[in-house]
Amino acid sequence: MRFHTRKWIKPEDLNPNGTLFGGSLLRWIDEEAAIYAHIQLDNVRVVTKYISEINFISSAVQGDIIELGIIATDFGKTSITLAVEVRNKLTQKTILKIDKMVFVNLNEEGVPTPHGKTEIERVVDRIQDK
Amino acid sequence: MRFHTRKWIKPEDLNPNGTLFGGSLLRWIDEEAAIYAHIQLDNVRVVTKYISEINFISSAVQGDIIELGIIATDFGKTSITLAVEVRNKLTQKTILKIDKMVFVNLNEEGVPTPHGKTEIERVVDRIQDK
Amino acid sequence: MRFHTRKWIKPEDLNPNGTLFGGSLLRWIDEEAAIYAHIQLDNVRVVTKYISEINFISSAVQGDIIELGIIATDFGKTSITLAVEVRNKLTQKTILKIDKMVFVNLNEEGVPTPHGKTEIERVVDRIQDK
Amino acid sequence: MRFHTRKWIKPEDLNPNGTLFGGSLLRWIDEEAAIYAHIQLDNVRVVTKYISEINFISSAVQGDIIELGIIATDFGKTSITLAVEVRNKLTQKTILKIDKMVFVNLNEEGVPTPHGKTEIERVVDRIQDK
Amino acid sequence: MRFHTRKWIKPEDLNPNGTLFGGSLLRWIDEEAAIYAHIQLDNVRVVTKYISEINFISSAVQGDIIELGIIATDFGKTSITLAVEVRNKLTQKTILKIDKMVFVNLNEEGVPTPHGKTEIERVVDRIQDK
Amino acid sequence: MRFHTRKWIKPEDLNPNGTLFGGSLLRWIDEEAAIYAHIQLDNVRVVTKYISEINFISSAVQGDIIELGIIATDFGKTSITLAVEVRNKLTQKTILKIDKMVFVNLNEEGVPTPHGKTEIERVVDRIQDK
Repeated sequence: MRFHTRKWIKPEDLNPNGTLFGGSLLRWIDEEAAIYAHIQLDNVRVVTKYISEINFISSAVQGDIIELGIIATDFGKTSITLAVEVRNKLTQKTILKIDKMVFVNLNEEGVPTPHGKTEIERVVDRIQDK
Repeated sequence: MRFHTRKWIKPEDLNPNGTLFGGSLLRWIDEEAAIYAHIQLDNVRVVTKYISEINFISSAVQGDIIELGIIATDFGKTSITLAVEVRNKLTQKTILKIDKMVFVNLNEEGVPTPHGKTEIERVVDRIQDK
Repeated sequence: MRFHTRKWIKPEDLNPNGTLFGGSLLRWIDEEAAIYAHIQLDNVRVVTKYISEINFISSAVQGDIIELGIIATDFGKTSITLAVEVRNKLTQKTILKIDKMVFVNLNEEGVPTPHGKTEIERVVDRIQDK
Repeated sequence: MRFHTRKWIKPEDLNPNGTLFGGSLLRWIDEEAAIYAHIQLDNVRVVTKYISEINFISSAVQGDIIELGIIATDFGKTSITLAVEVRNKLTQKTILKIDKMVFVNLNEEGVPTPHGKTEIERVVDRIQDK
Repeated sequence: MRFHTRKWIKPEDLNPNGTLFGGSLLRWIDEEAAIYAHIQLDNVRVVTKYISEINFISSAVQGDIIELGIIATDFGKTSITLAVEVRNKLTQKTILKIDKMVFVNLNEEGVPTPHGKTEIERVVDRIQDK
Repeated sequence: MRFHTRKWIKPEDLNPNGTLFGGSLLRWIDEEAAIYAHIQLDNVRVVTKYISEINFISSAVQGDIIELGIIATDFGKTSITLAVEVRNKLTQKTILKIDKMVFVNLNEEGVPTPHGKTEIERVVDRIQDK
């Protein structure tokens, strides 16, 4: 799993108890996973279809840096399944894990459509192949 | 289940495909569920601990009004379990359902602590009892 | 008057004095009232036309839960008049009251147009009537 | 009346009809008026107490530039009354007017307290007097 | 140089150290400069092309009021060059200065196009001339 | 240079012309660079001091994915100098480059203080060394 996007916990990300607001974290995860699916399927029309259960293992506080890791675990005909982990960048302690996030590949009419991908691909390689 | 909070889908809530961004929806749900837990446990120190699997059933577009419904389904010793449904206000069509969201009741030191509640209580009744 | 939408006061909602920023509260009220007007008139093209005087009775602080109540008090030919109250959810103390918020019903060209409604209607009843 | 703060209407400021969201405009006005009161009373502890009726005269669309004008119309013992006008910067057309916005001067305990000001003062002059 | 837009530093504008987040300040400057360029060139299609070096001279904290000053220093054939200063409104202390921000005037196809302006013009005068 | 944080251009990130708002981009860069400086200096108290000139080379539109790359180019006694590049993730086309962003290392009183670092360090290695 590669960890790309990083966030610095600012006042606007806190719940009234002063810890990272779970809803903000879920918003960041959904965006990062959508980006990953978008890159892998080379299609901007991907939508969240399913998220498996979520355990909030540890929290974060103002000033912490967190990083989001994603990996594709399965390529369906019209879908892609991702695993997600969020951790504290400096302590490497896990904050949250999600086993499965399923995104669906849509065509221009918004209908699920085959993406033709079967394995993880790096953008640099894809560009060089063209 | 009672539906309280309503949202009007504005441009800032959309993903680049022009439909409701899943991450925004998750953020709203987490806030609404935390409010519900806070009211039931009469304690502001409640944190999200667990969310069961999430199926995105239908979407929403700009201008839609959605409403969020929550009900307590179980009172643990230091926790509360909620069920969530989000639907389109005008068509009543379900957008998303979550069977279990578990919140934990913390004391001032942030340690899980018994809340002493065993059933759903309305604020008005609680105030009148005092 | 029914109280629907709830808000949890977070750091991003505060003025630099640490109390609820009046402008944030007005923004929430305008959205909630527009939603109510939209539902009653069954038309998404409704715009704020007039707000009567506003008294800020009490404030709110970080961690407070507030709820917004709205009721239709008059149906004009092309308009609807609403009364608004915002209160603290747990103490039921009034934060702010507005006697009249007038919304105008527009057609697709943005011109005021009759809405044909004369009384408060619940969405569930309207759907069953169809 | 002097017009200071300007805003450029961006997608995030629109209601679902594509015109300037009234709630965003009210939020901007409350901030600008609080800044004006803060400067005049030379005290950061000022809170909105009262807003007289508001007529929405014209609207604004994406890409428009608007400017906010404020002037003090009355200095009470512990309060200041302001008049507000918002207009389109390029056409100079009025968008909204508010006759009276009353802000109260608070001490460190949050209690209304005399501010000792009786007329409009420019910051530059105040600094030179010191 | 005229100082127009003012900002009141709120919790949402802070970095985790509790001082004004540099990125927020840059965002405000870019919007204010774009507004100024837009007004001077009487064209909404203006884009940031170049920003000269930026020295952060002093900071700001929650509750501070800052003001943004802009002046056109050069009119190119298809561009305009601005100078920027941000200062604390109450102390008049400089927070940041930028010598040159260059904006380019675009036509409807997004291509740089002559704007025909050679000097600073006030909107009021331009309207009266028409 | 390693590219970590990714952003998906959403409606809220656009200027009124429908392209990526330069101010939003600057805000993201400042946060990402602060995170990088924070990690390298192992200190949360780092502030932006200087940014060298910025050329906006190409733009981005709604739905684009961009990635931010940072590398430390110099370690001063109390400062760190970074180089920044932002590019389109899928086309690898450069959007913007900044040669030098200087961050200063502060102690608890906010005074510049030596950080003792002289070269780029990975968090994983630092943790293993402890």
